[in-house]
Order: sequence, then C-alpha cells, then structure tokens
Amino acid sequence: MSDAPVRAARRGGGGAARRAARTAVSVETEKFITRNIPHYEVLTEEALDLIEANAETVLAEIGVNFVDNPDALDRWRAAGADVQGERVRIPRGMARKLCATAPSKFTQVARNPDRNVEIGGDSLVLAPVYGPPFVRDAAGGRRYATMADFEKFVKLGYMSKWLHHSGGTVCEPTDVPVNKRHLDMLLAHMIYSDKPFMGAVTEPSRAQDSVEMCEILFGKDFVQDNTVMTSLININSPMTFDNVMMGALEAFAQNNQASIISPFIVGGAMAPVSVAGTLTQVLAEVLAGVAYSQLVRPGAPVIFGAFVSSIDMNSGAPTFGTPEASHITYGAGQLARRLGLPYRSAGSFCGSKLPDAQAAYETANSLQTGLLAGVNFMLHACGWLEGGLVASFEKFVMDADQLGTLHHFARGVDTSQAGLALDAIEEVGPGGHYLGCTHTQANFETAFWRSNLLDYKTYETWYEEGARDTQALAAARVQKLLDTYQQPSIDPDVEARLRAYVAEKKASMPDAFT
Amino acid sequence: MSDAPVRAARRGGGGAARRAARTAVSVETEKFITRNIPHYEVLTEEALDLIEANAETVLAEIGVNFVDNPDALDRWRAAGADVQGERVRIPRGMARKLCATAPSKFTQVARNPDRNVEIGGDSLVLAPVYGPPFVRDAAGGRRYATMADFEKFVKLGYMSKWLHHSGGTVCEPTDVPVNKRHLDMLLAHMIYSDKPFMGAVTEPSRAQDSVEMCEILFGKDFVQDNTVMTSLININSPMTFDNVMMGALEAFAQNNQASIISPFIVGGAMAPVSVAGTLTQVLAEVLAGVAYSQLVRPGAPVIFGAFVSSIDMNSGAPTFGTPEASHITYGAGQLARRLGLPYRSAGSFCGSKLPDAQAAYETANSLQTGLLAGVNFMLHACGWLEGGLVASFEKFVMDADQLGTLHHFARGVDTSQAGLALDAIEEVGPGGHYLGCTHTQANFETAFWRSNLLDYKTYETWYEEGARDTQALAAARVQKLLDTYQQPSIDPDVEARLRAYVAEKKASMPDAFT
Repeated sequence: MSDAPVRAARRGGGGAARRAARTAVSVETEKFITRNIPHYEVLTEEALDLIEANAETVLAEIGVNFVDNPDALDRWRAAGADVQGERVRIPRGMARKLCATAPSKFTQVARNPDRNVEIGGDSLVLAPVYGPPFVRDAAGGRRYATMADFEKFVKLGYMSKWLHHSGGTVCEPTDVPVNKRHLDMLLAHMIYSDKPFMGAVTEPSRAQDSVEMCEILFGKDFVQDNTVMTSLININSPMTFDNVMMGALEAFAQNNQASIISPFIVGGAMAPVSVAGTLTQVLAEVLAGVAYSQLVRPGAPVIFGAFVSSIDMNSGAPTFGTPEASHITYGAGQLARRLGLPYRSAGSFCGSKLPDAQAAYETANSLQTGLLAGVNFMLHACGWLEGGLVASFEKFVMDADQLGTLHHFARGVDTSQAGLALDAIEEVGPGGHYLGCTHTQANFETAFWRSNLLDYKTYETWYEEGARDTQALAAARVQKLLDTYQQPSIDPDVEARLRAYVAEKKASMPDAFT
Repeated sequence: MSDAPVRAARRGGGGAARRAARTAVSVETEKFITRNIPHYEVLTEEALDLIEANAETVLAEIGVNFVDNPDALDRWRAAGADVQGERVRIPRGMARKLCATAPSKFTQVARNPDRNVEIGGDSLVLAPVYGPPFVRDAAGGRRYATMADFEKFVKLGYMSKWLHHSGGTVCEPTDVPVNKRHLDMLLAHMIYSDKPFMGAVTEPSRAQDSVEMCEILFGKDFVQDNTVMTSLININSPMTFDNVMMGALEAFAQNNQASIISPFIVGGAMAPVSVAGTLTQVLAEVLAGVAYSQLVRPGAPVIFGAFVSSIDMNSGAPTFGTPEASHITYGAGQLARRLGLPYRSAGSFCGSKLPDAQAAYETANSLQTGLLAGVNFMLHACGWLEGGLVASFEKFVMDADQLGTLHHFARGVDTSQAGLALDAIEEVGPGGHYLGCTHTQANFETAFWRSNLLDYKTYETWYEEGARDTQALAAARVQKLLDTYQQPSIDPDVEARLRAYVAEKKASMPDAFT
C-alpha cells in the first residue's frame, strides 16, 4: 500500500502550549445533558392513539404472565385484574391509571454530589455497555471477561468526560462465581468511581445485597429517602414477567430505588415483524410492568424501557442501527412522554465483530436517534460490540468520545447577538476571512465540538505517526487513561466496611458457577 | 490476537437458494426517496425571522461582489440594485422577490426515463462524491486519480441500488489535461451509466460543451424543454461570485439547465465561528446567487445549496459530522423551505484518512442529518474520504449500502392493520415467539432493511472466513461489482456521435494542465 504523502500539507497551526493542553488527561465530567432542542416525532397523534388502544386490548384480552410469583398474582387480583392461573388480564385503562403514581422525573444521587443525575424531563444521562460475557481489545483479541477487565472499564468510565453514570455489569466477570460477582462489581463501582451506578438483578437476594451495600456507602436513612441505584429489569418478551426479575424489582421498589422496566426485543422473534406491532407490544409490556411497580410501592421511581433490535431473517442474528430500530426508538419516546415517564432506549449498538466502520455506522445511527427521540437514560452508550456479546476497550473510548457530539447538539442554536454574529460579517466583508476577526478570537475555543480521539492531522503528520486507524488511536487512549487513573477519595472507614461486607457475604456461600 | 471461537454459534439458517439469491448481483436502482416522515427543525420561527432579517441587512448594507463580470453588474443595475465597482448592494426584499420565479421542484431527465429524478418537495436524490484529486483503495493505497479510476466509479454508481444519480467529477482524472477532462468525464457518465448526471463548471465554455453533448444525447429541442443536467456552482464565501462559476451558471440557466447555488464554507474561516452567523451568511449568499440566476432567465431551475464543515482551531483542518454542522444543515433546510427552493446539503463527509470507524461515525452523523433536515439533493452521498481530498473505492460501496437505511427510514411507520399486527400478538401470546407465525411469514422478506455488505454472520463463520473488517468486505464487493458490470444499452449512432464530438473538441485545443 503506497501511503506516502504526495502533496503539500494543509495549513498547520497551534503552539506547544496548546499541544500540552490537548494531551493533558482530565477527569472532568460534564453534567448530564439538558436538551434545548425539540424532539423528533415519527408518529402522528392518530397513530399513537391506535397503538395505545391496541396495547389496552392486549392487556385486557390477551393478558400477561407473571411466572412463579403468587404474591404478584395476589397484588393484581386485589387491584381488580382478572387472574387465571399465571395469566393476568388488566381491564382497559387500569394499567395507565396505576402508572400515574410513578414520578415523571427523579434524581439518582451519587456519592459525589456533583455527579448526581436527573432522569426524566429534558435530561439525558449516559451510561456504559451492560452485560457482555466477552471483552476485546486489539492486543488481546476476544476472550472471556474477568474481574480485572471489569475494574478497568469502571476506571475508564470514571475518566470519560461525557459519561455521567458508571453503569452496572459493564462486562460479566466470569472468573468470579455467579452468586458472588455482584458483590465485587458493586464494590468496584463504589470504590473506583464516584459516579452513580446500578444494582444487581440476577436474584432478589442480590438486589437486597445491593441495597445493603448502598446503606453502608450512603447511610441507612439516606437510602430510604433517596434513589441511589437505577437497575435494569428486563421483561421476557412477549409479555412474560419472571419471578427473578420481578423479585429484584420488588426489592428495589420497596427500598425506593429505581428500575428500568424494559422489554428486551429482537423484532421478528420476540415481537411482530413490524414497527407498529412492536410498539404496541412494548407499550403493553411497559404498562403492565410499571403498573406492577406501583402496586408494590406507589411512587417508586421507574423508567419506560425499550431495548429493540431487529432480526436478520437470513442468519437469525440481531441487527442494529437499522431504520426500523430507529422508528421504534422515536415512537417509543412519544409513547413514554404521553405516559409521563422517563424513557430509556438507544445505545452504542452494533453487530460488528470489530470496532470498524460497520460498528461506527450502526452506533452513530443509534446514538443520534436516541438524542432526538428524547431518551432520558441511555444504557450501553459506549463500548458495545458484536450484538452485546463483547465489551470492547477501544470502542468504549471511541463511543465515549462521540458522546460529546450529543452534548453539543443538545445545546441548540445560540441566536443571541453574539451568536448571530452580524458584526463579524460586517467586519470581514466580501472576499475576506474570519480566522483572525474579533468575533472569532472571542469565541473559537468553545464554538465547535472537538474530538479528543479522532484524527484531525495533516496527511503527512498522520503518515509519519504510523498511519493509524481509529482502533489504533483508541488503543493508545485506553492505555493512557489507565496509566493516569487516580482513585477518587473515599472515607477509609466506609471503604473498610464495604470490603468487610463483601468478604463476609462471599464467605457465607459456596461458589456457584451457573 | 486470539480470535478463535470460544463459544457455540448463534442459530444459523437459510438454504442454498436463499444464499444464491443473496449473492447474485442486481443492477436494480431504487426510485429516488419520497419522504413520508416529518422534518426535524432545530430553529424556532423567531430565530428564523432574525436570521432572515439579518441576511437582508447583509445584502442591503454590506453587499456581495460579482468579480470580473460587467454583464452581471449591468443586470443588477437594471434590476435596481446599488452597484459600486464590483460591489452589489441589494435593497431589502428584492433578492427574495426575484427568487420567487425559481421553481420549487423540477424533474431532471435521465437517458433511461426510469431513472428520472424529481428535485424538491418531499424528494431526496442521492449522488456520489464530487471533486477529489486522489483515490484510495486497500490494495493500492492513496494516489492521484486517473480516468480509469473515474470510469470505475461511474460503473460502481450505476450498479448501486440506492444511488439515483451518476454525479459529476466523481474524482479528478488528473491524467487528462484540465481543459479536456470534462469531455471524457461527460462521455463516461453518458455511456457507462443511464442515470442522470452533472455538467462541467470549470469554464463557461465547458458548461457550453456539456450542453452540446446533451443535445447529441437527448436531441437539441429536448434539452431546451427539459432539464437534463444539475451542476454545482460554488460561491466563494464570504459573499464573492467569481466570473468562472457565474459564467457557467449563466450558460446553464440560459439553456434551462439546473444549478446548485452553494456557499462553500469551512465555519470559522469562510463564515463566522457560530451557527446562526453562518446561517445568516449562507442565506444572504444563496439569495444573491438564486436572484442572479433569475435575472439571467426567470424560471431557471436552481437549488439552495449549503456545503458546511467547521474548522478545527488547533490544526486548521476542516472537520465533519460535527454537531455544529448538523445544526447548520437543519437550519438551512428550514430557510430553504421558507424560500420555496429545493435544498442541497449533507453527504458522506468525514475527515478520516481511512474508511475506518472515524469515517463511519462522521458519515453516519451527516447522512442521518441530511435525511431529517429535508435535503432534496445530496451530493457526496457516498465515497468521500479525507475531507474530500480522496475518493475511496471501499467507502463508496460502504456508504452506498448505508443509503439503503435512508430509503427505509423515509417510508415512515405503517399503521395499517397489517402494520399494527394485533393478530400476530394474539396468535403468539405470552411466552411464545414470532419466528413462524402467520404475520411473520407474510411480511419478513420486506419488513426490515438488510445490508448487502455488512457482517451479520455468526462469530465462528466470520472467523473462518478470515475475520474481515468492513474495509475488507467492501474491497471484495468493489471487485465483484466491477467484474459483473455490464454497460447499459445505448443507440450506437448516438454513442458514435458523442465520441466524435469529444475527439474533435480535444483535437481542437492544445493540452493545458493548470
């Protein structure tokens, strides 16, 4: 490949001081996004009415299953639903009415109050990938994730300027027994980061452990009065609520902790092979799940979730960043706003095996859609690879950098006198240039979003530095962030009590690996 | 790198027949996009009013320069503008009034009438990259473009399902003299494709040559009555209209041929370092340019153009796919609709040197924005690399594949009974799956957009096939398309006359390389 420069460089610029400022590593975290822009709405009022009416029909006539959960069936029966076996049929309007006690907006408190996030309204909170059993990096390839990988991701998240939330199971630490890994994961979020985090949902008892660890970190009364965890409760679509996830939801709701109630849908497999049909089912499932949370504790904070991909009918693989997924993301946002609930959707979704162009096209499609769709909580906002099987170190920092574009876009357009810049146009006039004019000098440093990762160099410099692609630039950034990571301070007594709690819990159980 | 599979494959599927259907090469071209979706509008009415008022101030008080063009100055003087030297000051309201004779929508005819495109209204026409002096592919690296490269791009464009237009200077054939290459380029568009194309703008005489070649291809009278070319007229921002571009515009307008009148702006250099300031200048420039086209010939078809990138204030490089560029693309779309003109903006823009993740993030950001901004003609919709210095073979087919997502998104959401799919939800019920249900069987083949390029395979299959990234998959697709290319039929007499015209013209001039 003949990549040597064959033409003069474009104009360079920038002194040593600016270069130093650019290469310094900052642990500054931007505040969660507050949108100053309109939403994009793909559905008409008439279409929304149809979907809402059909969702009520689904709940009233088909119903949903609450599996292995007699308490849940009792709660539904007491509320006036028609319960036959495990099938719960909810009269028209009842679920929506129950949802009304859920807050439209809530604050999740972090141990560093500067990192508190508001979830709902015009806000957008960004959290990293959740759940992959594998990790990948350029040096080591694809391999099962370990607790050491998990800790690295928590550190990268802590150092990511545009990431507001430390997330939950950023990857599955497969070297720790299944029944104990939640303890190590929570400890890592609490110690290595000061951003808000998620609780464990894989058993109701692990949700309870999460609450108890938060009581050590924040204080027992504080946890009852404040939401300090937002956890991920998936619905087994279609229309099935299993006792593990519902048990975790019950534990969190009873303790005033937030849950994302989220259909998990590969369209064509777990929902109809159409956008409006999928939206109908998503709405029915969320209505049932949120209504149930309010039966457990009226006022419990919850989020309208929609995890949606579509299926490739040739291979059976889930696909991401597709136009149908975007339609659903926009439509579900409209439905969530009509319900008055915070909304979770979108993310750094892609099906690619590598952090290559496919990964980036698909991810960018989803991130942009999430911003304009009015998403309030974006899980998986960085690091997702291979349909969620893999957490990629390089893609984590690549996506985290792109999240900066969402912050800048959400600011909207400045139409103050300074923004309109008529004086600059007058100063420069026909045939001039704006590089040195007064308005440019006053505004250039903050005017445009600038990547901290992507290549903006001249061809010649880029070539001399090794003709690196984005993955190579990202690998260098991962290393730099980990090399310069410094743990945020924590009360040593609190840390000791957390460690003691984890040690004691782990010693109290035999290891389980399934 | 340890990439060997470590886990069971996901479910496979698909028989030999489906595989054969998938691997066959089709030259089907989808009709231009007709939007069935709303626009995204980032500016309020009040902000639009302010920008429009300021643009009138720019025209009336600062004015624009028409350089080395006494005829243009005469036309402006006769229309009532204030002309001093080469500076033209246009009284408030006059430019907008002159623009009113430009059509809000026009048809560009192709030699294959199935390929005619409508430009304006709800339509979106996609055309390839324009202008790069270099080409790149994985095998040969970066090098000066030649006529052989140009012909390959025209063939790839012809075979791209989602590309409606053959474009213009897809790359600069630097091995042909500057004063003759337009003849070879036009001949290639006319012979190797049957999609619509663009004319030459680098000298007024070359615009005239373009008209004469179209007269051979379509017939002399036909060309006077129909628009058969849409050409790119750049404004030298800020506010300068040079005689070369204006001469080409005059030639096209006098012959009823369409021009994109397009400020060429790197924000911070050729326009203020702010979104609203840049929009003000873009609007003033387009108003002056379109008004001038209507002075030349009332009713001449024109397009409101906005080519916008922002500058990286550290390196001086233009940057792409940024939030500020998106703001401008959305805002300019609103301004164009208020003027009642077709709108050109967005494209496969990126600054990356390689068709890697950076290229794809930036490109996806711009393509999505162009769709929702109401762009009617998207030049550079595929193949752009390295800030427009390079036309990439691999990126051409990568982007062209992504253009399929725009088509599917633009269809909007089907809320017919079939789309709502309530029967499917009833058929499947809680805990079932939709893979074999009646609704899925009836709809799965057309329900979801499917890439013809990206990797949807299982990890194991992908690994066994060489663990290829997107660039490698694209390189294989480029080769396959070129290997299977077949020239569309053309009247041999017309082809002979075109070749004779080109040979005669080339023989009539000495070579010029600058």
